Parts: sequence; structure tokens; C-alpha cells
Amino acid sequence: MDLLAANDAVARHNRALFQRHGVYVVNVMSGPGAGKTTLLEATVDALRARYRIGVIEGDLHTDVDAARLRARGVPAIQINTEGACHLTAEGVHTRLGELDLGALDLLFVENVGNLVCPAEFDLGEQDRVMLLSVTEGDDKPLKYPLMFHKATALLITKTDLMDPSRFDLQQATQASRAYNKDLSVIPLSAVTGVGMADWVAWLEPRCRAVDRGARGKWAS
Amino acid sequence: MDLLAANDAVARHNRALFQRHGVYVVNVMSGPGAGKTTLLEATVDALRARYRIGVIEGDLHTDVDAARLRARGVPAIQINTEGACHLTAEGVHTRLGELDLGALDLLFVENVGNLVCPAEFDLGEQDRVMLLSVTEGDDKPLKYPLMFHKATALLITKTDLMDPSRFDLQQATQASRAYNKDLSVIPLSAVTGVGMADWVAWLEPRCRAVDRGARGKWAS
Repeated sequence: MDLLAANDAVARHNRALFQRHGVYVVNVMSGPGAGKTTLLEATVDALRARYRIGVIEGDLHTDVDAARLRARGVPAIQINTEGACHLTAEGVHTRLGELDLGALDLLFVENVGNLVCPAEFDLGEQDRVMLLSVTEGDDKPLKYPLMFHKATALLITKTDLMDPSRFDLQQATQASRAYNKDLSVIPLSAVTGVGMADWVAWLEPRCRAVDRGARGKWAS
Repeated sequence: MDLLAANDAVARHNRALFQRHGVYVVNVMSGPGAGKTTLLEATVDALRARYRIGVIEGDLHTDVDAARLRARGVPAIQINTEGACHLTAEGVHTRLGELDLGALDLLFVENVGNLVCPAEFDLGEQDRVMLLSVTEGDDKPLKYPLMFHKATALLITKTDLMDPSRFDLQQATQASRAYNKDLSVIPLSAVTGVGMADWVAWLEPRCRAVDRGARGKWAS
């Protein structure tokens, strides 16, 4: 509990910093291979003409994900946890100096691929978005309730593989909302593009609201 | 480190118990939704005429997986970790009394779906087998090296979805063997049955060797 309390104190500090700079920060969580990086690539493509986007990538090892985002023309920092199964507020905080927060509207923090531990650690984000790929199965909300409980949006990804995965979208949605009645559920495929407009439509007013509070850029 | 040392002491105790009863124990690990339970269902169907099989299921919550295995006619115990992201030797030990080890040849322990933490906790098994589903992506050996390092066999699952997942089997195999040159790599689909015979052929002599050492049943 001391560990979590210490984390939450740094998370509050991060959150104040993000608010002051008018940066909307989204903590992106999922199990391994649910498609977080592919989603971020497609999201950057959809939004970079209108918003200044940055990315923090979390992985135990490698910087391949940060390299993928940099190739999309956005600043991306790679945090390597070297064995730890989640990001921490402190881990994010120590790397923020490498980003020019004043020059960003939107910052995605891609957490370590893990359906359990990342949900316990507030990073200072405004929203927690989780991905569940259809290939993982519709039983996951029952087995891993905490992350579904803590998310504000659930993206059901890889919907192009819905049929061969025998994924029951209605059952997964109902099970997720049993813990979290206001959860936004957005099915999409970042590969085919189906559903991406719904995700962008969810994201954009939230990004503008944070900025409006801080700097008034979108207030007109 | 004290936590791991305490775990390892109980794991040695479990291992001695399994050996004495001639039970071959396999710790089955993967990220969430890689198909562990579906694999065990198909493996039970393939082997139950020749071996007496038991299953221990690990999940944070629910007993749906144990129920699926019991429906296959084998004894199955469900361990709920209530938030913890991996099984421990102690957690397994406290439930062993519910199984008649003397009446088993083969015991599968299905770990919590998590590519990180389960690899650090020896449960007393003879073999650690991990699953990587093609839908998770071929970059996972580089990102989550420990589990690939600790496994004796890597099952590449859901090969019926290989093409739409753009999974490079050769790259994943090479990356995995970079840490673990003797790793057995077995591609399969528990749904179509392709590759299941290779997995059974890997498993069966190992099961018989443990029993031969303990009871001589297969010695003839």
C-alpha cells in the first residue's frame, strides 16, 4: 500500500503538470499483442494534422515501438522497465524532461502489455483506455475485472478477426459494463480502419476540453 | 529476493512430491487469451485414454476454466489469485491435497495469463511450456525475453490465423532461440488440430520418463 500511495503522489504531480500545459494524456493499457502500437500509429495518422502528438512507450525491453511511432513523425520516448510488468508514475516523471510538453496537445502513454498490474498504477493521465483484441476471447472481462473497471473506454480491437475468433461482442460489452456502467465500448480494426472514426470522435472533444481549460486555444 | 527464495523452497518440496508419485507436471504459461485452456481441452482429448490427467487452473477470478476441463472428464482445481498476476509454489501446494496424486500420470498447471511475472515463480513443475499465439505478434520474444528463456517448449498457437496476423514464424523462432538454443518450437492450432500430434509426441516420452523413474509402470 505504501508503494501505491507513493505512486499516487507522483501521479498527482504529473497530472498537475499535464493540466498546466494543456496536454491531454491517455494511458493505453492491454494484454500483450492486443494492438496498442498499431492503434497509435493509425491514431497519429488520423489526428496529426490537427493536434501536436507525443508518445511514451513502455516495454520491458527493446525500443521497437518508439521507433515505429517516430517513423510516423511524432516525438516518442521509450521507457524500458527491465523486467517490471507495468509503468509507474515515477518512471514516467523521470522521462518527461525529454518532451516539450508546451508543444503538445495530446500525449499517449502506451503501458507494458499486461492485463493485470498496469491497472493499479495511476500515471497522472486524464483517461485510461484499454484494448481487448477479439482474439483474446470474450471471457477476459470476468477474469481480469480491475482493468475493465478502471478504464473510461474499452476498444475492442482486431474486429477483422471477429468471426474466426468466435468473439461475442455483446457478451464482452455486458460483462465489462457490469463493473463499469459508463464505460464507452468502441469496436474497431486499426488494420482495415473500420471503427477508427468512432475512436477519434471519442478522443477529440476530450483533448480539446483539457486544452480549453489550460490555454484557450480551442475556446473560440 | 527473499520472496523468490521462499517460493523456490516450496517449489522444491512440490517437485519432490510430484517425483515420488511419478506425476509429470507441466507449468503452462502465456499472455491472456493465447489459448491455454483450449490447448488443454484438446490435449486431454488426445491423451486421456492412455494417461490419467489432472489440471490446476490459475486465474485472478472465476472458475470457468476448471469447469471447462471437468466437462472433459478430468479432475480440475481452480486457484483464484484474487488480484495476483501469477501462481506461486505455496498457492499450488496448499491445494494439492484436493488431488489424488497417486492416481495421476500427468498434471497440467495453467498459470495466470501474463507474459511477465509467472516466469519468475518455479511451481515445482518438470517442464515449463509457453504459448505464443500468432495474433500477439512475432515481436514478443524480444519484448518479454524471460519467459522464452525459461521455457522448454514454445507452442506457437492459433496458426489458423497466421496469414491475417502477418506472423513471421521463422523470425519468432530465431528470436526465441537466441536466448534458449535448445527450445522446442511447435506450431499448432488446437481448433483445426494441425500440429497437435507434434505436441503430443513431445509430451508423451517426457511423461513416461517421469513415471518410469518413480513407479516403473512404463518400464516394460
